[in-house]
This record gives sequence, structure tokens and C-alpha cells, in this order.
Amino acid sequence: MNTTHPAATVAGWIDADVRGDGSTEIRDAAPLDKATDTDLAYAGEKTTPSALSASQAAAVVVPKSLAEQVEATDTPVLLVVEEDPQTAFLACLERIRPRRQRRAVGVSPQAFVSDSAVIGVGTNVHPTAHVMEDVVVGENCEIMPGAYVGPGCRIGDDVVVHPYAVLYENVVVGDRVTIHATAVVGADGFGYRLEQGRHVRLPHHGGVRIENDAEIGASTTIDRGMIADTVVGEGTKLDNLVMVAHNCELGKHNVIVGQVGFAGSVTTGDYVVCAGHVGVADHVHLGTGCVLGSKAGVNKDVPSGETWIGVPAQPVQEAMRIVMASKKIPEMRKQIRTLEKRLDAQEATGDTGAAAA
Amino acid sequence: MNTTHPAATVAGWIDADVRGDGSTEIRDAAPLDKATDTDLAYAGEKTTPSALSASQAAAVVVPKSLAEQVEATDTPVLLVVEEDPQTAFLACLERIRPRRQRRAVGVSPQAFVSDSAVIGVGTNVHPTAHVMEDVVVGENCEIMPGAYVGPGCRIGDDVVVHPYAVLYENVVVGDRVTIHATAVVGADGFGYRLEQGRHVRLPHHGGVRIENDAEIGASTTIDRGMIADTVVGEGTKLDNLVMVAHNCELGKHNVIVGQVGFAGSVTTGDYVVCAGHVGVADHVHLGTGCVLGSKAGVNKDVPSGETWIGVPAQPVQEAMRIVMASKKIPEMRKQIRTLEKRLDAQEATGDTGAAAA
Amino acid sequence: MNTTHPAATVAGWIDADVRGDGSTEIRDAAPLDKATDTDLAYAGEKTTPSALSASQAAAVVVPKSLAEQVEATDTPVLLVVEEDPQTAFLACLERIRPRRQRRAVGVSPQAFVSDSAVIGVGTNVHPTAHVMEDVVVGENCEIMPGAYVGPGCRIGDDVVVHPYAVLYENVVVGDRVTIHATAVVGADGFGYRLEQGRHVRLPHHGGVRIENDAEIGASTTIDRGMIADTVVGEGTKLDNLVMVAHNCELGKHNVIVGQVGFAGSVTTGDYVVCAGHVGVADHVHLGTGCVLGSKAGVNKDVPSGETWIGVPAQPVQEAMRIVMASKKIPEMRKQIRTLEKRLDAQEATGDTGAAAA
Repeated sequence: MNTTHPAATVAGWIDADVRGDGSTEIRDAAPLDKATDTDLAYAGEKTTPSALSASQAAAVVVPKSLAEQVEATDTPVLLVVEEDPQTAFLACLERIRPRRQRRAVGVSPQAFVSDSAVIGVGTNVHPTAHVMEDVVVGENCEIMPGAYVGPGCRIGDDVVVHPYAVLYENVVVGDRVTIHATAVVGADGFGYRLEQGRHVRLPHHGGVRIENDAEIGASTTIDRGMIADTVVGEGTKLDNLVMVAHNCELGKHNVIVGQVGFAGSVTTGDYVVCAGHVGVADHVHLGTGCVLGSKAGVNKDVPSGETWIGVPAQPVQEAMRIVMASKKIPEMRKQIRTLEKRLDAQEATGDTGAAAA
Repeated sequence: MNTTHPAATVAGWIDADVRGDGSTEIRDAAPLDKATDTDLAYAGEKTTPSALSASQAAAVVVPKSLAEQVEATDTPVLLVVEEDPQTAFLACLERIRPRRQRRAVGVSPQAFVSDSAVIGVGTNVHPTAHVMEDVVVGENCEIMPGAYVGPGCRIGDDVVVHPYAVLYENVVVGDRVTIHATAVVGADGFGYRLEQGRHVRLPHHGGVRIENDAEIGASTTIDRGMIADTVVGEGTKLDNLVMVAHNCELGKHNVIVGQVGFAGSVTTGDYVVCAGHVGVADHVHLGTGCVLGSKAGVNKDVPSGETWIGVPAQPVQEAMRIVMASKKIPEMRKQIRTLEKRLDAQEATGDTGAAAA
Repeated sequence: MNTTHPAATVAGWIDADVRGDGSTEIRDAAPLDKATDTDLAYAGEKTTPSALSASQAAAVVVPKSLAEQVEATDTPVLLVVEEDPQTAFLACLERIRPRRQRRAVGVSPQAFVSDSAVIGVGTNVHPTAHVMEDVVVGENCEIMPGAYVGPGCRIGDDVVVHPYAVLYENVVVGDRVTIHATAVVGADGFGYRLEQGRHVRLPHHGGVRIENDAEIGASTTIDRGMIADTVVGEGTKLDNLVMVAHNCELGKHNVIVGQVGFAGSVTTGDYVVCAGHVGVADHVHLGTGCVLGSKAGVNKDVPSGETWIGVPAQPVQEAMRIVMASKKIPEMRKQIRTLEKRLDAQEATGDTGAAAA
């Protein structure tokens, strides 16, 4: 199990002031509300003094602003930092509960590596991984057990391909890319032509290009292009179970959340954000910095910087106006009935008046 | 192929009374409307006498209540049971068309099992399965071909890990859990921090805990927590292609249907039901026994026992009222136009009247 | 890299007339707007003369109709064809940038093939593929690395099973079927019965039948039936990340786009089209030739030939009428307020009049 560290030692890692007993032993870490008396936790700007006092944690990393609102005596030991307490806490977490480090195991004799493949220095190819003909893999990569790198693929440096991720032929991957387990990159695009009542597959001779620092989630699928490549831009992050269809060209630093689907030939600018379950129709362009709310169904171009929601998607203000108004419909129907009654009465009196004349 | 059994023999398995020729041979089983003259079928309370008479089945398991409404002469052979005919039928199905039984093959020499892994008695580890360092697997488990159990995982007894299911490091699995093919448990959560225009991954040092009797569907993904564990509670069933993001804590005996997505830190009570394509925003709580209709988009807490639908999700009654009212909008517009005309006329006469005075 | 071909040679492949310098060298192919001066491109009926003139392509395959609108002098070299230019272009693409051809490698000694399995002539079984007991595989199939074909499966001729696709036991696959990477066919259906507060799995003794010329996308899941088979009809194409639940029976030549979900026992006619993220409730029937718009949530039968959208799904005309009308609600609320004011005034004058009488 984990070793223990005195609070004072932990404070030293992050250059924090200790309020309380620096000899308190810290064994592990936990969220503030779940922490036990051997755990380190952290409190952000939003944490209330009472939540801090109520925590059972052995010690808590806190910002100065919060520390000043409480007496150290009625709290866990406080490790007071100037800057962002989350960053400081995560630095401690790395040392208290380290992730396993990669070991240099080289190319396993139980991996399946083509004679024509080139493997860079410091790259591990684990048992049952497949590296097919004409593949080039850069340096310090992890080709995990069962990862399949198809013929002609080009992979940069410091790339991790997790178990059973599948790269079909001629996929190009940049540096520092992570491809999670069972992701599928480069399957044939979903393109057919109807001939004599049968769907005949259109050949797909394009590939897929994944640029530097992109991340591809578990079970996400990215189809190859028909003529040109499908592209995932630099630093763009795809969550799990995302669908990127043939010929899409995603820009840089997009954040695409779980189960989003892009139809064919969608293009995006940079810093686009799509929340969960968003769907985008084919050939639509998402402008730089636009944000699509969860479950939005986008069937036309979205201008840069705008936030759209709904099905069909529209600017959030309009959509909300309609949603709010819709709640009034039952009331409106009552109002109309009342008006009708009042007019009936009016017309009656009107007639009387006429008769009287 | 299947051997045949006389209807009387089959009746004996389920303690049923035979109406008709007990020597009728049964070779297989099928739904009532698809059954041929060598098939066993069953009829529920809802089945009509005419549907029963129309069936081509060799024999039909029926409840007494239904049997009493028909003459055995104009039906297939009836196997009349006191209790639930489906249960009785399924018991027969187990014997007529048995699933393959597991064989004790032990740890295959073609599996990849770390010297530091501990494998329980009666557990099979099949060829190309990976059981990494410091793993503990309980008794009578099936680690199927290509299943990947990452470093430090702990697996209970009677667990089945299907082909190419992937458990990243330090995943904890209880007893009697089934993890279907290509499910991914413990991938890094989708958490980043924007630094100088780039999304920098937040380290995820938490794990995933799957409690007893849970079932994880094919191609479903469950991300690891950042500090604490992501949790799937006892007896909770996840269908295929479900996304459970980092830090979620699902309660017991939930039923989560295909393609549902939970954003980060969602929590649920027990016996929660989510229909297909439901999406739940981060940090939302779903109360015990609540039901979410298919495609609901939930952006706030759902009280226990309530049924919510729609995007954004709301109690079903309100949602239906608005849906129904929306259908009236075109009519309402007509009514408003009519009122305007009538008022115009009124005002006209009103003026005349004034002029007459 | 690719070899080069003179434009005149390429023209010969597709029986095209050359307008411009037939000696122009073509090295690769690209879309019209991305092509460089060594690329072949194509222009369809919809391409404008100006777009054609603006292209940097070395040569462009064009229909006669378009060629007649431009001077060859202010365009790339034109390869003028009578028929569909896309077809002609794709024929060239096959020769300019060919996909890798399959090689006859037979049954790899590093594959795991049961002694009781029967493998047809010309079929390749690649390293780490699993072909379990009692399997029959036809001729000229590709069982790719890591593909898992469970006990008792029957596979036809010319079938491709991509890496880490998983067929559970007793799945039947026709001829010319492609199953993409990490697809899962035949997992147990999501069916339980609540007994003493616990969900108890219903046994699933049915199988899955995939008919000739069907295609199953990457990471798509098709569950086995409970009694009868789940069926994917002849020529039906499933995109990636599609969910087909137990007992579904899909007709012929359906086109089912990414992330669609079918609940249990859904049936469809032929030539059904479901756009992305469509969800269909259990036991619903989709009539032949019907079209479901993206994100539709279908909870009742859809008649043949109709187009439905929305949640709950309804005929597109009705749905659009309501969407359009909804945009008028804020205006309607104003109109009602105006009417109320006018009536107030009316009633006031009415009273005055009465007083005056």
C-alpha cells in the first residue's frame, strides 16, 4: 500500500505554509467530503469555511483567501498555498499515489512486427500488438498489447496506442497523440451508391490524419476519407464513443464530448466545443470558438463564437425564448377563451344598444 | 442438430398438464407466431385464443386461464402450467437448446499472465488474454481470449470478462460481474485545463469500482475518477455503448439502456431507469426510483420516483401538457385573427354609435 | 510514392476526350478545390465553370455538359466523359492510388483455430485470430488479426471480419459481408426480470443472422435474440456505433447511420433510412421506404414511404408546422395583450354609452 508522509513534508513539495500539526501522517488523497483522517484533500475558492471545518481529512490544501476565514484549530491541518490549490493538490497526488511508470521493454518477441516496419528508439511494442508492413513508428511510443497498426501507417514520437485500438492502413498520427482502447481509425467511410436496388460501396482511397497532441477516446471511430484525408486537428480532444465520418476536417483544440456524431465532410474551426450527444449534419461548418449545447442537432453552419442549442440548433437566446414562451401556451389558450367570451358579451350588448336606438 | 423430445416428456420438466397428443415430437423452440410443427412455444396472459389456435407450433406452454378459453382440439398440444408460462418455457428452452457450458481449461500457456498475478481456483484464462502485474483474479472466472486486465486490477469470483474487454490499471471488480466484449473500463477521464491556448490533461489517479452482480454491456466505456473512484453500484446493469464519465457514482440496481451518456460526477440512487440515448449533465443527481424517458436531456437533479422526459428534461405531465398544447398553436393563431376581426367590427359599430349620439 | 501518368494515358483508362496538354503528368488525386498541379480531380454537374477554372488541378474529369461551358484554355487539362464523372474519376483513383490487395496467406500457425473448425479454400486466418469449435468459414474470407469467431458460428464466402470484431457463439453470417473492427455480434440481449429487488438475467438462446451483402460498422453492437434470431437483412448497411437490441428483425437494403439505436424487437421493411442518433422504441415497425430524420425518437409504427422527424417522431409536415408556429408564440402573446387592451377600452365606452342612454 501507499507509504505515509508527514503533512510538513507534503507542504514542502508545494511550498505551502502549515497551519496545525505538521507531523500528521498522510497516507492517501480524497475529495474533501470523502476524505478520512489519513487523506489529503483540497479546497477551492468556492469551498465554504464550514465545509472545510466539517472535513475529516488529515490535511487540506487551501488558498490563502480561504485560510484567512477559519481558525486552524477547528479544521484539519491546513497547507496554505498562494496559487491554485487544485494544481498544488494534484502535484501532491502524483507523489502520494503515483500512476505506474512505463518501463522500456522494447519490441516484444510476442508482438507481430513486419520486417518492413521501422520502430523508433525507446518505443515499446507489447505482446500480441500488430505492426504491419511499411509502418513507421517514432520514438518513445507505447504500442500496447493487441494494438493494431495497419499497413503503411506513420506514427510520430511519444504516442500511446492502447489495447485493441485499430488503425486501418495508411493512417498518419503526429506526436504526443493518445489513442484509447478499442478506438477505430480509418475504417471505410459510410458511402454507397444505389445501383439496381442495391447499395454499392464507394471506394475510399483517402486516409486519416491525426495531428500533434490530439487525443482519441475509447471506442471512438474515425472513418477514412474518400479522396482526401479525414483530419483531426492539433490538440483536438475527442471523448469516448464519438463518431467522425469520412472527409471531416476538424480544426485545432476542439473539445468533442462523448457520443457526439459528425456526418460526412463536416469542417470545424479552432476551439470548438460540442457537448454530449451533439449531432452535426454533413457538409456543415462549425465556426471557430462556437459552442454546441448537449443534444443539439445542427443542420446549418454555425458562426464563430456563437452558442447554439436545440433540434434544429439555433442561437441559445432564440431557443430559450421559444422554450420559455412554450410554457405559456396553456395560459394563452385560457386568455383566448376569455377574450372570446368577453367579445360575445360585447356583441350582445352592442345588438341591444342597436335595438334600443 | 437438436434431439427431439415427446411433448409429455417436456411437460414433465415443468410439471404441466398435457392437453392433446403427448407423443408429439418437439425438436426446437420459437415464438408463438414463428413456430413450426416441431417447435415449442409459449403463450402469455395477453395472448388471444385465436392467436393460440393459429399457431403452427407442435406444443405451446400456456397458463391455465388461457387454456380454459380454448378447445384443445383446435390448438397445438397445450402444456398447461399454474405459474408464469414464460418461466416454464425458458426452463424447457434451456434443455431443448442448451447454451454451451464452460469447460475447465485453466490458465492457457498462450495467455500472457504476469508472474506477480494471482489466479483463483477454477478460473480459465484463455489464449491471448493479458493478466498484468499485481492482478488478483478470484475463483471460477472466465478471462476470455484477448481480454486485457491491467496492472493492479482486483477481480472477484465468478466474473466473466469477454473478448477484448479492456480494464486499465487498478480497476476493482466484485463477484458475479459480466463485462462484455470490447467494453473499456478505467480509461483516463475527459478532463483538461486550458493553458496558453492548449488543453492540458488533468491527471487521473482515481480508479473504477464495479460492485457485485453488475453487468457492463459491449462497447460501453467507464472512465476512471480523478481523485476518487468512478463507481457502478451492486446489481446495476449497463447496456451496450453506454458512456459513464469520470467520478460518476451509480447506485444499486440501476437499469441503463443503450447509448446513454453520463457526464462527469453524476450520482444516482437505486433502481434508477434511463431509457436509450438519455444524456445527463455533470454533477446532476438522479433520485432513487426515478425514470428518464428515451432521449431525455437532464440538466438538473431529478427527485426520487419521478418520471421525466424531454430536452431539457421535466416531469412527464408538464412535458406532455406542453407537447399537446404546441399542437394547438396553428389553431390559436386562427382564433386570434378572428378575434381581431370581430373587434375591428365592434369598434366600427362603436364609432357609428358615437356618431349617432 | 505514386508513379506518374500522362493525362492522355489516364484519359485512355476511362475513354475520355482530352482538352489541353495530354502530356501533363498526374501523380495523385484530390478534390477539385484542394488539388495541386500534379493531382487529378473531377467536376460534377453542379460544379460552376468558375470553380473549374479556379482549380489548380493538373487535370479534371468533367461531363460534356460542363466542358461545353468553358474554354479549355482557361482551365486545367479536361478529361471529358459522356457518363457520370465521379464513376470515371473513381476508376482512375483505383489505378493512381490503389488500395492494398489481399494476399493469400492461408491459416496462420499463430492463429487459434479449433480442430473442429472448417476453413474454406482461399480464406486467410491471420495471427491472433480465434476460430472456435464447430465453426464453419466459407471461401476467400479474411479473418483479420484478433478477430474472434465464437463456437458454432457459420460464415459464408468472401466475408471480411476486421481486427477485434467479436462474434459470440452461433452467429450466422452470409456471403460478402463485412464486419468492421471491434463490432460485437451476439452478446446477450439486455433482458432481465426483477426478482426480490434484483434484476435477474433472462437467458438468451436465440442467435444473430446477418444476411448476404450486409455491412456492420466499427464498434456497432448487435445483441442475440432470446428465443429466435436477431436479423440484419440482405444488403442492409449499419454505420459505426449503432445499437441493434435483441430480437430486432431488420429488412433488406436498410441504411442505418451512426449511433442509431433500435430497442428490442424492432422490425423494419426494406429500403428504410435512419439518419444519425435516431432512436426507435421496442416493438415498433418501420415501414418499407420510410425515412427517419436525424435524432428522431420513434415510439410508434411508421407507415411505408413516410418521412418522420422529431421527438416523439411525427410526419415531417406536421412537425415543421409546429416548429414554425412555435417561433410565432412570442408575437402571439403580444397580440393577445393588445386584444385585451382593446376590449377593455370597448367595454369602457360600452358602459359610458349605457350611462348616456
